[in-house]
Amino acid sequence: MTELKKIEMIRRLAGPASPIGDDCAVLEWPGSREDFLVTTDLFLEDVHFLRRTHGPADAGRKALARGLSDIAAMGGTPRWCFVSLALAAWADEKWLRGFYAGLLALARRNGVELAGGDLARDRRLACDVTVIGSVPRGKALRRSGAKAGDGIYVSGVLGGSSLGLLNRRGKEWKRHLHPEPRLELGRYLRGKATACMDLSDGLSIDLHRLCVESGLAAVLDRPLPVFHGAGLDQALHGGEDYELLFTAPSGKRIPALWGGLPLTRIGTMESGKAGAIDFFGQKLKPKGYDHFQQL
Amino acid sequence: MTELKKIEMIRRLAGPASPIGDDCAVLEWPGSREDFLVTTDLFLEDVHFLRRTHGPADAGRKALARGLSDIAAMGGTPRWCFVSLALAAWADEKWLRGFYAGLLALARRNGVELAGGDLARDRRLACDVTVIGSVPRGKALRRSGAKAGDGIYVSGVLGGSSLGLLNRRGKEWKRHLHPEPRLELGRYLRGKATACMDLSDGLSIDLHRLCVESGLAAVLDRPLPVFHGAGLDQALHGGEDYELLFTAPSGKRIPALWGGLPLTRIGTMESGKAGAIDFFGQKLKPKGYDHFQQL
Repeated sequence: MTELKKIEMIRRLAGPASPIGDDCAVLEWPGSREDFLVTTDLFLEDVHFLRRTHGPADAGRKALARGLSDIAAMGGTPRWCFVSLALAAWADEKWLRGFYAGLLALARRNGVELAGGDLARDRRLACDVTVIGSVPRGKALRRSGAKAGDGIYVSGVLGGSSLGLLNRRGKEWKRHLHPEPRLELGRYLRGKATACMDLSDGLSIDLHRLCVESGLAAVLDRPLPVFHGAGLDQALHGGEDYELLFTAPSGKRIPALWGGLPLTRIGTMESGKAGAIDFFGQKLKPKGYDHFQQL
Repeated sequence: MTELKKIEMIRRLAGPASPIGDDCAVLEWPGSREDFLVTTDLFLEDVHFLRRTHGPADAGRKALARGLSDIAAMGGTPRWCFVSLALAAWADEKWLRGFYAGLLALARRNGVELAGGDLARDRRLACDVTVIGSVPRGKALRRSGAKAGDGIYVSGVLGGSSLGLLNRRGKEWKRHLHPEPRLELGRYLRGKATACMDLSDGLSIDLHRLCVESGLAAVLDRPLPVFHGAGLDQALHGGEDYELLFTAPSGKRIPALWGGLPLTRIGTMESGKAGAIDFFGQKLKPKGYDHFQQL
């Protein structure tokens, strides 16, 4: 049972009213002019980070960056975070201090307050970060809003994080270690993009998800912006780039460069089998990161 | 370094404005007549539950009950929950269905919607549940509000969960397996109690925490309401009773029985060393559950 199928099952159990399906849940609140955005992200030793390659501050920073990227994908502003931490015996006081220092530095830079959490002890380190943000009412960017004919865009360049994980050096390793949540870009895209999500698991699986939510197919027929030195497979299927994937009407002007960040059109949304992706005439299978693909 | 000391360190790192210290964070939102309550609770295999004694529905129910009890302790109403789940290989589709069935049954009974989460795979099962609730502005019950002279009360009877964990049968095992969040009682106590928290780790450590937050000492000089068959040690130090511990002015009438649930005065808040507890003339050390007490 793949991750997509597990999530689909949970979604069915949760009932038709459940907001499961986007990077964040959008919670409406009577009397508020803002909607709330909530996201939770696991950060597990040997799954999302390695003790020997991620220093404590790197780990803390990345644990939070995942959630901030989800808020960015919805066009929101992050406000509070909550950190649940199961500490392994190896994580001493120095490690704990470093972890929170890294996490809090990124939090403060983005106006986010550490507002709570939980602590326990386990054999391996496990962390879950909840981020709560806000967005003007009804303005959240969702995966489901793409229309046939919309252009498909990505920010930045792809495959760098995956390359970095492989060779653990240079700019690509820094890219893997310190992903930069695209919060300003997300807010800029409000009212311009029709659909948006962050690239956490890889373009092929994430675009597949966006297509499924929008009930459309995608045609990729333009050059991908690839990280210098990365291969096409890394750009297509490598996870953790934390760039934004979005769609916009073909008539909407999207600048090629925004605040120094390339915004590249890579294809077009089309009617067809929901979730199907055509890559230069060939069917592209969603091969990005799936925690359960070997189960 | 004990759990209390770790939390104190994180609190200092988070800064003076951080709301860390209560069962939930209280988030104020411009324009809203309600404050938001947010709590996160880890639920780990071999720490908070055992695979061989907790069925999947029991595990799902309890994973959520912990957070609902935190909302109850603040006098709030739970609204949404988020479930981050790291699945072990042994947790098959049937287990996953059962887990969510148990969790969702308790959620629906309390008007709570499953609004999101995260999924990953790990060697042991780990779960983190975030619950978001609401409370009328400024009305949240906190640990810090007790005054010298206030009576100290507990709901229900204590030590049952601890006894159940020991002998795994009868009403005490049911008590351990299916704790009942005291949501209605929490709301009833708004405007009556001066301080409140839930008894998750044991009376001695939880009352110590309430005393520290209120800057007071406590004198316990009245009989404790003890679960039938449980010993005094289990009532004083046994965790997971999930009853409410609260204080109220001596002049405030607190009924001895509320909706079938005993509310028992067990002592009085007094000025003195913050956190010190006198139990019938003897100093009571906080001996409840501490994840890090052997570190």
